[in-house]
Amino acid sequence: MKERTGYFFEDFHLDQVFRHATPRTLSEADASTFIALTGTRHTLPSASPLAAKLGLPSRPIDDVLLFNIAFGKTVPDISLNAVANLGYAETRFLHPVFAGDTISCKSKVIGLKKNSSGKTGTVYVRSICFNQNEVPVLTWVRWVMVNKRDIDADTPREHVPSLKDVVAPEDFSLAARISSANALDSWCDATGSNDLWDDYVPGERINHPIGVTVEEAEHIIATRLYQNNAKAHFDALAMKQHPVGQRLVYGGHVISLARALSYDGIENALGILAINGGRHVSPTIAGDTIYAFSEVSEKFELPDRNDMGALRLRLVGLKNMTPSEVSSAHPDGSNPSKYHPSIVLDLDYTVAMPRRQKR
Amino acid sequence: MKERTGYFFEDFHLDQVFRHATPRTLSEADASTFIALTGTRHTLPSASPLAAKLGLPSRPIDDVLLFNIAFGKTVPDISLNAVANLGYAETRFLHPVFAGDTISCKSKVIGLKKNSSGKTGTVYVRSICFNQNEVPVLTWVRWVMVNKRDIDADTPREHVPSLKDVVAPEDFSLAARISSANALDSWCDATGSNDLWDDYVPGERINHPIGVTVEEAEHIIATRLYQNNAKAHFDALAMKQHPVGQRLVYGGHVISLARALSYDGIENALGILAINGGRHVSPTIAGDTIYAFSEVSEKFELPDRNDMGALRLRLVGLKNMTPSEVSSAHPDGSNPSKYHPSIVLDLDYTVAMPRRQKR
Amino acid sequence: MKERTGYFFEDFHLDQVFRHATPRTLSEADASTFIALTGTRHTLPSASPLAAKLGLPSRPIDDVLLFNIAFGKTVPDISLNAVANLGYAETRFLHPVFAGDTISCKSKVIGLKKNSSGKTGTVYVRSICFNQNEVPVLTWVRWVMVNKRDIDADTPREHVPSLKDVVAPEDFSLAARISSANALDSWCDATGSNDLWDDYVPGERINHPIGVTVEEAEHIIATRLYQNNAKAHFDALAMKQHPVGQRLVYGGHVISLARALSYDGIENALGILAINGGRHVSPTIAGDTIYAFSEVSEKFELPDRNDMGALRLRLVGLKNMTPSEVSSAHPDGSNPSKYHPSIVLDLDYTVAMPRRQKR
Repeated sequence: MKERTGYFFEDFHLDQVFRHATPRTLSEADASTFIALTGTRHTLPSASPLAAKLGLPSRPIDDVLLFNIAFGKTVPDISLNAVANLGYAETRFLHPVFAGDTISCKSKVIGLKKNSSGKTGTVYVRSICFNQNEVPVLTWVRWVMVNKRDIDADTPREHVPSLKDVVAPEDFSLAARISSANALDSWCDATGSNDLWDDYVPGERINHPIGVTVEEAEHIIATRLYQNNAKAHFDALAMKQHPVGQRLVYGGHVISLARALSYDGIENALGILAINGGRHVSPTIAGDTIYAFSEVSEKFELPDRNDMGALRLRLVGLKNMTPSEVSSAHPDGSNPSKYHPSIVLDLDYTVAMPRRQKR
Repeated sequence: MKERTGYFFEDFHLDQVFRHATPRTLSEADASTFIALTGTRHTLPSASPLAAKLGLPSRPIDDVLLFNIAFGKTVPDISLNAVANLGYAETRFLHPVFAGDTISCKSKVIGLKKNSSGKTGTVYVRSICFNQNEVPVLTWVRWVMVNKRDIDADTPREHVPSLKDVVAPEDFSLAARISSANALDSWCDATGSNDLWDDYVPGERINHPIGVTVEEAEHIIATRLYQNNAKAHFDALAMKQHPVGQRLVYGGHVISLARALSYDGIENALGILAINGGRHVSPTIAGDTIYAFSEVSEKFELPDRNDMGALRLRLVGLKNMTPSEVSSAHPDGSNPSKYHPSIVLDLDYTVAMPRRQKR
Repeated sequence: MKERTGYFFEDFHLDQVFRHATPRTLSEADASTFIALTGTRHTLPSASPLAAKLGLPSRPIDDVLLFNIAFGKTVPDISLNAVANLGYAETRFLHPVFAGDTISCKSKVIGLKKNSSGKTGTVYVRSICFNQNEVPVLTWVRWVMVNKRDIDADTPREHVPSLKDVVAPEDFSLAARISSANALDSWCDATGSNDLWDDYVPGERINHPIGVTVEEAEHIIATRLYQNNAKAHFDALAMKQHPVGQRLVYGGHVISLARALSYDGIENALGILAINGGRHVSPTIAGDTIYAFSEVSEKFELPDRNDMGALRLRLVGLKNMTPSEVSSAHPDGSNPSKYHPSIVLDLDYTVAMPRRQKR
């Protein structure tokens, strides 16, 4: 049968390997279209001469764009029949990617768990994205809730993998990406901010000033740019049967938007080193206005580097309420799974940022 | 007068030649934007390293994108005052086009027929698209219904051209496009499917699983990418006077969408050799959800080629009904001009596909 | 505080200099996306082989696109808290910009005036855009109405600059852009029009035939492409408090659209030399259909150039009425500040155009 229906929960087994289809040559165009779809002003992916000062051949492809295109490659095999993307962990950016590079991905099933309903199960996969020279550029773990085709089918052997809460500094792949930030004399002019690694304090919260209302056409254009073909984002007719009743904005695009909004206040981030974890707390639909705030969770010195440090950040995406209206992601206090109803995204990630040089 | 009103039916005459305006340099950006607007995952236009294995300098511009941009060039002269695009024939893809190439088009009027209403006439043109070295890259015939400026004007001498029902294998221009598919060891990994030419059977039908709901903004962005300036797609105010009452989605963009949907089930197509014929059966408007199914009409061996064969396919585009709900394009049986009401596109085209190699 | 709230009226002072953030590498992608967002068919930014005939290394970035991206760079410092963009003057295009170039901008405050309400003031800035070699490529003056943060704050020293009504031919920077138009034998084939500089008459009016209905998603995608982050274009929730009640289309995008529409009738313009002045007469919102007409104001011979001349044009953008329905921009006669209610844009600019060669 040539009617491609994708994999259902009972089709997966532990250690199963997928080589995902459709390698993709990235281009300056993807960078430009990503700017048009998110408004991102993060500086390194915007300006090649600044990248050259860091020893890079040209401006790198934005980290979140790379993540989303790589993720898109895995959808036809892993999540075509997914109900929800439940979480991310152990995401590491390993090597910069430039216009002209061609990426491809593979995934391995590292965990399986049937759900109590019997209708779905959770599939854990570790994915790796390579460039055309087979150099790994990005790796991540995600887990998704996947429908069963046949509710009575045998379910695969279960295993819940143990995943790290945070990517440790010794696991950052910094050298390949930024050999030295000492040359960045004019960096703060280029970013418009003088706040460097030294100026951020754990516990500090930054409300990002801008909000963006999402339109149906823009999120589907973005999700197609990522070559993600999950039905829930594209087929309004089928989504009438879904509890939400309409197309859902792809969660990775919410990350793109929130990360773009976070520029104002975290202008000097040089790139993402790791995504420690992430949750799409509630769905976003066209018409929602997205805002964001960030919290500084932790600061890392980096081994053998006095030119830069790492900041662990929590990026919280909100819908239809401004950051100033939401005093805490967890109004109930300590319960980390009970969120303020406006929250759509809770992302825990780590960036590199230049340190102030002693003169 | 510098108010450009375009050509009306009485302005055309047989053998009239148009050199169409606005040559266009194509770029990686057009490839990327086309992915964003259609979600296409066809492999060769997606990945340059795969193209290199076929002896091409880089990934070629997607055939449907090329067709639509070339078509757009002809609109200001041929169809600015068109009521409807009635059909296509004898479309042949002659030479690959790459980022950096500049295309331009010319057309010749090969047929004219006044309509019984007296208000319109049908204009048949054969168009050729060239690259910057004057190499023909694409040729097609289309016929359009064009308004008369003055209902009492004399009409031009009539002639209905005889057109071929199908482009024959000896008229394919394959050598320039794909010198050999024997090097494609990893092709099926890249496409995600092991179904090769050998595995398709005339009469077989393939339902494509994905549907896409069209938004106003996305179809006008696509149609502008094609530099097609026909009013019906852009001017909602003027379209209030039209029977449909709103902007129409450009038929070529429906082809783009349906062809992108057809990836799932026909993954190994290497490129389009010919469009034998095509009809926009009914209009598509924003809000419609497009689905598609394909039928295998015919298989061709190719002269002197044992690495690949050709498949003649019928690509049927549907609106607001899934392929599983539409058992036949012609529920009435043999009447080929009476279509199921959900059908928007009936395209007859031929692709190249690798053959299974004997080891 | 890392909550970036931007500059308010009381934060500006005369001669204050801003080096704006986020240098931007331009690419073929920006050219392509601009075509997709505006439908522009202006020939020189469309086709590299024609640019080569003028001695340029490749097709230049469209002048209006360059203006809008450069303008976007100034928004976070100058107009994040702007109520309205009031006008433009002394805009000169100094040097061509190509894919691969990186632009950055700086601005100087040249005027300040408090408004009678006491709640706002007018800020005049002269901005300069440079390429990566510090060559000035574009300069302009604009003035904006900016909110005060604190209505009781002291206001800065006032000064209203004197600005020229029109950029004089000796201030055009033509040589760097178009060394000779004599080589343009096939130019009129490429543009589709034989109307050259010689054929335009001061006082002549040209109604442009096409209209475009603006969608929410397309104007926000365009405005993001320009990396303009002004709230009024993006945040529908906040705009519910605004008298208009919804997002406003960025005025520079209205210029992009109207300029694209003006192709039909002014096909042979080679590029913009200057924008003498401009007003966004009334706001444009999604759903509006934009039309345009042009008036020829003045013709200039150019010093030492018999290959081309300059045309001073008035580009009038309309909403929801066609040019044939609006006989004059000022139905009241001579009052230049009282406009026909359909008018959204009144732009006074000067283009270069080839002259008919004596054989």
